[in-house]
Amino acid sequence: MEMSRISRVTAEMKAAGLSQILITATTSVYYLTGFWVEPHERLLALYLDAEGKAVLYGNEIFGLPSTPELPVVTHKDGEDPVADLARAVQPGTLGVDKFWYSKFLIGLMEHRPDVRPVHGSMPVDLCRKLKDEAERAAMRHSSAMNDQVVAAAIGAIRPGVRENELAALVNREFVARGADCEGRQLVCFGANGADPHHSGDSTVLQPGDSVIFDIFTPISRYWCDMTRTVFYQTVSEKQREVYELVRQANEAAEAMIRPGVLLSDLDRCARDIITKGGYGPYFTHRLGHGCGLDCHEPPDVSGVSDTPLEPGMVFSVEPGIYLPGEFGVRIEDLVLVTEDGCEVLNHYPKDLQVVG
Amino acid sequence: MEMSRISRVTAEMKAAGLSQILITATTSVYYLTGFWVEPHERLLALYLDAEGKAVLYGNEIFGLPSTPELPVVTHKDGEDPVADLARAVQPGTLGVDKFWYSKFLIGLMEHRPDVRPVHGSMPVDLCRKLKDEAERAAMRHSSAMNDQVVAAAIGAIRPGVRENELAALVNREFVARGADCEGRQLVCFGANGADPHHSGDSTVLQPGDSVIFDIFTPISRYWCDMTRTVFYQTVSEKQREVYELVRQANEAAEAMIRPGVLLSDLDRCARDIITKGGYGPYFTHRLGHGCGLDCHEPPDVSGVSDTPLEPGMVFSVEPGIYLPGEFGVRIEDLVLVTEDGCEVLNHYPKDLQVVG
Repeated sequence: MEMSRISRVTAEMKAAGLSQILITATTSVYYLTGFWVEPHERLLALYLDAEGKAVLYGNEIFGLPSTPELPVVTHKDGEDPVADLARAVQPGTLGVDKFWYSKFLIGLMEHRPDVRPVHGSMPVDLCRKLKDEAERAAMRHSSAMNDQVVAAAIGAIRPGVRENELAALVNREFVARGADCEGRQLVCFGANGADPHHSGDSTVLQPGDSVIFDIFTPISRYWCDMTRTVFYQTVSEKQREVYELVRQANEAAEAMIRPGVLLSDLDRCARDIITKGGYGPYFTHRLGHGCGLDCHEPPDVSGVSDTPLEPGMVFSVEPGIYLPGEFGVRIEDLVLVTEDGCEVLNHYPKDLQVVG
Repeated sequence: MEMSRISRVTAEMKAAGLSQILITATTSVYYLTGFWVEPHERLLALYLDAEGKAVLYGNEIFGLPSTPELPVVTHKDGEDPVADLARAVQPGTLGVDKFWYSKFLIGLMEHRPDVRPVHGSMPVDLCRKLKDEAERAAMRHSSAMNDQVVAAAIGAIRPGVRENELAALVNREFVARGADCEGRQLVCFGANGADPHHSGDSTVLQPGDSVIFDIFTPISRYWCDMTRTVFYQTVSEKQREVYELVRQANEAAEAMIRPGVLLSDLDRCARDIITKGGYGPYFTHRLGHGCGLDCHEPPDVSGVSDTPLEPGMVFSVEPGIYLPGEFGVRIEDLVLVTEDGCEVLNHYPKDLQVVG
């Protein structure tokens, strides 16, 4: 058990008026208990009350050891997974993890109509979004590996290469640097890059393509996530204009990061630059997202995120311009908010690059 | 819109007394609409009533086209994602997809205390678990590719190789055969194989190790999933005994597959063989799981699954024996239930193999 983290969570529970919560996300359970369990369709739930009493519920297949500090209550495949949990919760309000499957919540409500489920991820999210020293070190390490991997990927650009070959190379390079697993890397050539979520397929590289590498992986549980865009063989005036606008938006937003500034101010800063450049409608997503044990986690870095920056926050700054049928450009760093500014965790250069 | 599938689903809704359901899983929305959307933390929900009226709700970033047949209602990042949906649902019972995030369900319930959420995945699950002709062809193709990939992986076993190198090779071989993405392949050497969910890490192969390849990927959206276990350089008498018991359990269960037999009978058949062989406590999971657009989907193939087999079901038959600190053996095929028996979709041999 991570007792200092548990204490921070129960303090947030009291502040929010929550006497009991269910923590069910793999990453949040790991953050508080040190147990990493991927339950897939099975039940995993850490019950926590505001006095710090914690009980972990899970399928016996997870092999979790029960201790006096953290009792583990198991069930078997085929048994009602929420029966024990339903006996344990107190009547009234129950904070529920945002990503818990509805099948479990509905099952729990059928057992316990006297329990009223409410949004309950905030206490853990508020703690997780301020990284402690061990977490900051982990994030620095992951991003340093990402700098190396993006360099290898850009170096591997060659005539006839396919998106999914480069995506596979990115995974291999990550694994060689200690990645926990392989993943779905976003490698986008030309018009494919106009879809912010396009992932590498069998598209073959063509001269004049923009090449987006949006690459991310967990290393020792903590994610890196960065994007660089380069051009293959030639770059048009329009591509250059778009690239410089995105770079300016990325750098201007990063330059204003310090405690007290609002997250929404960062989004506005980047968006204003792109809008003044004439491409506002083509910056179709928020500026960024928190990153840590999950690749996407709080804080939200968008126009409606009226929360002040605090030291220890780690998030992405990733403006982009997406021109359907033509090309896309995105530039993304992870940043760590410090006492008086910010530490950009990615160091791979952002100068316009034409390769091959 | 897949109108014949919609009709089958609405018939199941009527049979279950459900007048409205929310379909939110990527795969189920794809199954019915042809749209593949991975919403991550964002909202995607197909509202369907028993008369066949369908409306799709999703974040505008998904770029879904609205048509008269399937109106699309979008929201933006930062807006309340369930507001429009909450206005549209009818009072009373609402069937909810089992994997919908609790944050959306709780949000919907706050808007609409007159709506009572109940388990609502069954109508779609009942349809999806009986594969139509196009789906059977897709499953055959994926499994044929898997046969080739496991052969390549076993052929790549060499002195000093690490689990994660073989896992990366499996991914490359899958991608070369049209896999939609890379994934977390289970490659387990020696004692690591005693954990059924161990995934490839930096463990180095040792003489006498059992080597489990449990490899799976979607190809054109439909998953393959097979396991083979081989031995490196030598095989002990105990390993041989365990292997032959697992093989016998796998083959006996497959031999009894025909419409009308209960899924639980298959689990019992395999489990009885392993129990009589003295290893009952070490077969720690169910016999198998349905497979299709999801790697794990209905039907459940376990001791409590008292459902008769029907033509069109596709599921895994994967008995295993796991000896903590020693080694593990698992043998898994996908099978398709036919009119009068079963078609085993994997053809890679199951004879005991000592390699290297």
